[in-house]
Amino acid sequence: MNIQAPTALSGEGAPASPVRNVLFIMCDQLRADALSCYGAAGALRTPNIDRLARQGVRFERAYVSSAVCGPSRTSYYTGRYPSSHRVTWNRVPMPADEWSLGDYLAQAGRDCWLLGKTHFVPDRKGLAARGLSAEGAARERLDEGGFKVLERYDGHFEMEPGSAYRDYLVARGYDRERPWERDVIGSDHADGSFATGWLLRHAGLPARVAERDSETAYLTDRAMAFIDAQGEAPWVLHLSYIKPHWPYKAPAPYHDMFTAADAAPPLRGREERERPHPVHAAYQRHEESLSFAQDEVWQAVRPVYMGLVKQIDDHIGRLLDHLERSGRMRDTMIVFCSDHGDLQGDHWLGEKEYFFEGAVRVPLIVYDPAGEADARRGHTAAGIAECVDVVPTILDALGLEIPAHRVEGRSLLAATRGRDAGPVREFAVGFLDYAYREARLFLERGVTECGGMMLADGRYKYLYWQGFRPQLFDLRDDPHELRDLAAEARAAPVLKRMGEALCEWNWQRSRRCTETFEQVRARTHAHERMMNIVIGRW
Amino acid sequence: MNIQAPTALSGEGAPASPVRNVLFIMCDQLRADALSCYGAAGALRTPNIDRLARQGVRFERAYVSSAVCGPSRTSYYTGRYPSSHRVTWNRVPMPADEWSLGDYLAQAGRDCWLLGKTHFVPDRKGLAARGLSAEGAARERLDEGGFKVLERYDGHFEMEPGSAYRDYLVARGYDRERPWERDVIGSDHADGSFATGWLLRHAGLPARVAERDSETAYLTDRAMAFIDAQGEAPWVLHLSYIKPHWPYKAPAPYHDMFTAADAAPPLRGREERERPHPVHAAYQRHEESLSFAQDEVWQAVRPVYMGLVKQIDDHIGRLLDHLERSGRMRDTMIVFCSDHGDLQGDHWLGEKEYFFEGAVRVPLIVYDPAGEADARRGHTAAGIAECVDVVPTILDALGLEIPAHRVEGRSLLAATRGRDAGPVREFAVGFLDYAYREARLFLERGVTECGGMMLADGRYKYLYWQGFRPQLFDLRDDPHELRDLAAEARAAPVLKRMGEALCEWNWQRSRRCTETFEQVRARTHAHERMMNIVIGRW
Repeated sequence: MNIQAPTALSGEGAPASPVRNVLFIMCDQLRADALSCYGAAGALRTPNIDRLARQGVRFERAYVSSAVCGPSRTSYYTGRYPSSHRVTWNRVPMPADEWSLGDYLAQAGRDCWLLGKTHFVPDRKGLAARGLSAEGAARERLDEGGFKVLERYDGHFEMEPGSAYRDYLVARGYDRERPWERDVIGSDHADGSFATGWLLRHAGLPARVAERDSETAYLTDRAMAFIDAQGEAPWVLHLSYIKPHWPYKAPAPYHDMFTAADAAPPLRGREERERPHPVHAAYQRHEESLSFAQDEVWQAVRPVYMGLVKQIDDHIGRLLDHLERSGRMRDTMIVFCSDHGDLQGDHWLGEKEYFFEGAVRVPLIVYDPAGEADARRGHTAAGIAECVDVVPTILDALGLEIPAHRVEGRSLLAATRGRDAGPVREFAVGFLDYAYREARLFLERGVTECGGMMLADGRYKYLYWQGFRPQLFDLRDDPHELRDLAAEARAAPVLKRMGEALCEWNWQRSRRCTETFEQVRARTHAHERMMNIVIGRW
Repeated sequence: MNIQAPTALSGEGAPASPVRNVLFIMCDQLRADALSCYGAAGALRTPNIDRLARQGVRFERAYVSSAVCGPSRTSYYTGRYPSSHRVTWNRVPMPADEWSLGDYLAQAGRDCWLLGKTHFVPDRKGLAARGLSAEGAARERLDEGGFKVLERYDGHFEMEPGSAYRDYLVARGYDRERPWERDVIGSDHADGSFATGWLLRHAGLPARVAERDSETAYLTDRAMAFIDAQGEAPWVLHLSYIKPHWPYKAPAPYHDMFTAADAAPPLRGREERERPHPVHAAYQRHEESLSFAQDEVWQAVRPVYMGLVKQIDDHIGRLLDHLERSGRMRDTMIVFCSDHGDLQGDHWLGEKEYFFEGAVRVPLIVYDPAGEADARRGHTAAGIAECVDVVPTILDALGLEIPAHRVEGRSLLAATRGRDAGPVREFAVGFLDYAYREARLFLERGVTECGGMMLADGRYKYLYWQGFRPQLFDLRDDPHELRDLAAEARAAPVLKRMGEALCEWNWQRSRRCTETFEQVRARTHAHERMMNIVIGRW
């Protein structure tokens, strides 16, 4: 690839940022170690994502702030932790005072285009009750989490009858009523009868949909068409894939590209099965956990998951080829990430949510077209990165101010350009609010008593559980997190240190979020000057 | 007084709430132990407030969530702690998703009238930047913290040229340019020259303003006129006095009603002067602290403060007489409180802010006209009450739903009506963000590194300080908080328990604040039913 000098945008003054466009790619439920650049344990190779990593910086220890779609995405889009943005679960409406990437870009006169999933829910009732409304583009940002919708498609698409993808499928001859359920995630049994994609036992059957009409192909096509249509005008696009999230259903040829022998077996031990922490025990009783505890289930699902990842990798390859051919690699920043992982039997659990690496650790690759970044291409960044870093990274790359009184992450340009990153980040922090899950009922907890929090410092992972003892894992000596050390005497000083750090961390949150310290202080000083106020002078 | 049966509001169905009206009275900077019903140490007797206490329930251990005006009031008005509403200092704009009492009342078609101070600042810039606006009454609620303004008057009134009080003073012949600074807080020296009320040394001189035209008299007059004008229509009024907040300046005859010999001396010890906690030490270096450390200062100020409290008590007497004469005691709930106290030399400090009892403990008296409350009249409630309890108490009294996903306090009707209060509240919780004060500079802290938090369980008071060791006081053995136990060996288990409780408390905050648990769950279930979603079934 040829890294060319960026085109100057402004004729005078400070040199324009070399980054004109941003392609912010998110996969759904893609665990880091599914990719070969992250040392995939199975037979899957992802040469195109690996190629992106060679051109950019790969963050080895990237964590999401929650291993649940809604909270994680809200953290990605706002640059704030769940305790700040308060979207602690899927379908919790976002408070109206939260700003997302698109709101910051709008302040700079730019749009943040959306293609795919966000899972965003606006607080419509709350706004209406207080008489608040917005018009035009501001209204759309409010309704869509800051995005300007090219096409929103959250994946379970029969919910969205206006969807362009639905129309596309119908026009292509798929089922007129429920094309997604019947064809995109549906299969045929050998006897011709319908096999729903909702059941894991049907995972290995090919989707009825042709690969070129599948979700991953469709969204990639639309992204390339969008990029072409922009010509030389700058753009920011969030390309948000639906896959490899369940239903585990791949179109041919990806459905049987891998076998159970190609897949890594689940990471799980006897001790965590026999003497689990109470919250872990409750999660093991979930239906998805009971399913994945059976060998036949992970052996059926993991190969299909690998196929879905392989399909994404192939389309990332198409996209990169397209950007290179069109010259866009010279002025486009690419962020590649996932909203969380997928346990698929690790630790006797299905799905995600729990703070094990397979759920909270995600791929994060940043390609920075700037010349300053040349020396770091192919670099692996060992320090902790978090999903809240994406908003400040994009703002920084576009030369926009990072509003530190709201945004809690920090720019990763320090890593891509070898700048001083400031003080080392001590912890990745994660949140879980399991009130909506069966675990709450198993544990007989109230709906505000289901909080969990993770502090991971690169070696230790400390889990705080509201109302239960903490957990502690030593990822250096026990990288697969099979041994909870919390009850061992030697863990006491670590537990104490990390427990205190958790309290301290809570205090460092951005509490004054509407104005900066300086703005408030200036207003106070203006008031005091105008009033000649003197406090406590004899 | 004659407690009569309430007038039924509705002809049929469930009996109407006996509470039709609410008079929510707040004083500014009134410490609990200034009142004789709270065992005032000095010579001051407050028979009218005492009379209110005999007719209602007096909360012996009532705490504010912050001993700073802006955060405390925002907690009073929203029913939420500063860590939730995020107004951590004066003039920090309130995030637009926070609901206040007036917003809840508006949902029920009722107004929340304001007469006096709120210190509220709307997030105008934030709303405008996101294109959000409201019209009419909703706009006023947004701009005024939920209140419908009869007259807003924050005390430093030259800032508010549209003020009716200013016009009143000018019409009464006071200074046309700066009637507040010249006459309300201004005095004459014996030689006829002007003595500004800003200097503590001038405290003992009488204000130029006549008592009947002073802030306390004016606001009381307006409140009585408002109540008369409502006739039999129900109303909620927040009567928010300016006094006894500094400038310490009383009109005759209150300016010299008390002498230094009548005043309690400051509560302060040698140890806290010689070996203070670092944050306490920094606060002791503030100008107001250096002033009040001198005997001549507290001896000059405390008697005037007592006079200002006496004046309020007299006007509360007028107000109660008026309510009794007009029959309003039978259907009006009265809440009497203060936004924080005033240290005036206690612990070598001036002003408030720090978590000593003189600053965070406030008077809180609730008069409940319901017949159910008769058995509790004159009762002293020993349990911990907090300022966040006022919103749920008022909503409860008016028969309105308390939105528990947002409101963090709880109704005090359990105390006024002898109901089961549910689990005993373990702690009063306080917050301090001293970033805006000189203490931050003395301690060389960053603007997000100045957090303090108090947990007070009735016996122990635990102070958490970001970046510094905690403090611990035993109020049973040391009611004047002169001995910080944190460094003593016997304190270790208490420190551990309360430190853990602080973390646990943080987790219990209302994080999902836009919808209730049930609303979100119902939406999720509707989605899953419509999509026939099955998660993880083999």
